[in-house]
Amino acid sequence: MDTIFQFSRRGSASEVEEGQALAPKFDADGLVTCVATDATSGELLMVAHMNAEALARTIESGEAWYFSRSRQKLWRKGESSGHSQRVTEMRIDCDQDAVWIKVEQAGPGACHTGRRSCFYRAVPLGKAPDPSLRLELHEAKAFDPQAVYGGKKD
Amino acid sequence: MDTIFQFSRRGSASEVEEGQALAPKFDADGLVTCVATDATSGELLMVAHMNAEALARTIESGEAWYFSRSRQKLWRKGESSGHSQRVTEMRIDCDQDAVWIKVEQAGPGACHTGRRSCFYRAVPLGKAPDPSLRLELHEAKAFDPQAVYGGKKD
Repeated sequence: MDTIFQFSRRGSASEVEEGQALAPKFDADGLVTCVATDATSGELLMVAHMNAEALARTIESGEAWYFSRSRQKLWRKGESSGHSQRVTEMRIDCDQDAVWIKVEQAGPGACHTGRRSCFYRAVPLGKAPDPSLRLELHEAKAFDPQAVYGGKKD
Repeated sequence: MDTIFQFSRRGSASEVEEGQALAPKFDADGLVTCVATDATSGELLMVAHMNAEALARTIESGEAWYFSRSRQKLWRKGESSGHSQRVTEMRIDCDQDAVWIKVEQAGPGACHTGRRSCFYRAVPLGKAPDPSLRLELHEAKAFDPQAVYGGKKD
């Protein structure tokens, strides 16, 4: 796919916040933050990043594309696992440095560890963080990540 | 408040993903991403960042603290506006570089522009991004930001 895309130039804070022009604020690494929630349940599935091309492809195709910071690579969610994400709605925040996508998640889960959501552990509140603070597991695996991903990510 | 805090050291990928130790992965700027959703409605309110101190204060106090990248400053949500956030639950993701807080949002909204949520505009899907692509306003102002913030943020 040869995506040709051009976002609007960023104007004043007021223009960015109150205007109708899509003028994303990519950070020093060329990325915006993307939050993906389940379109049906509303649950937070994952937080990832998009560069300009990933954002453009997602808008154009309605499928979630991301940019991996660890692998420095554009990727389509599900390209290894089959667990793709169809985007039903995209929102952008006030200063246009974060996008929110509501997705129909294919397969049993979004997380490469085998869970539905990447946020399967809770941090206990009310005490000072120290090495004895233990996370609480809130969600069991929904699939075998080795069988699905075979050591890859997607 | 003199918060003394010490997170666990990061071990192997498996330890970070499957273990119970809280070992956040702060980025080159010392930050993790924080997603705040409304504890009642589940709506995404805002995406912001926390440094180690903001994260520790949030865990300890149960009130949302953030680190402003633009102002390079620790801040308690609501310190200017009164629109603080009481955290009812905190989750952390698989590789521990993003946290999710469910919050009881004080006041009419979380966004400094006067909306309930920062994500008040939608990006139309299905066409290549170009400067003619126009955002769609999905949420009107819930309060007068000038009256509440007086030109500050919080």
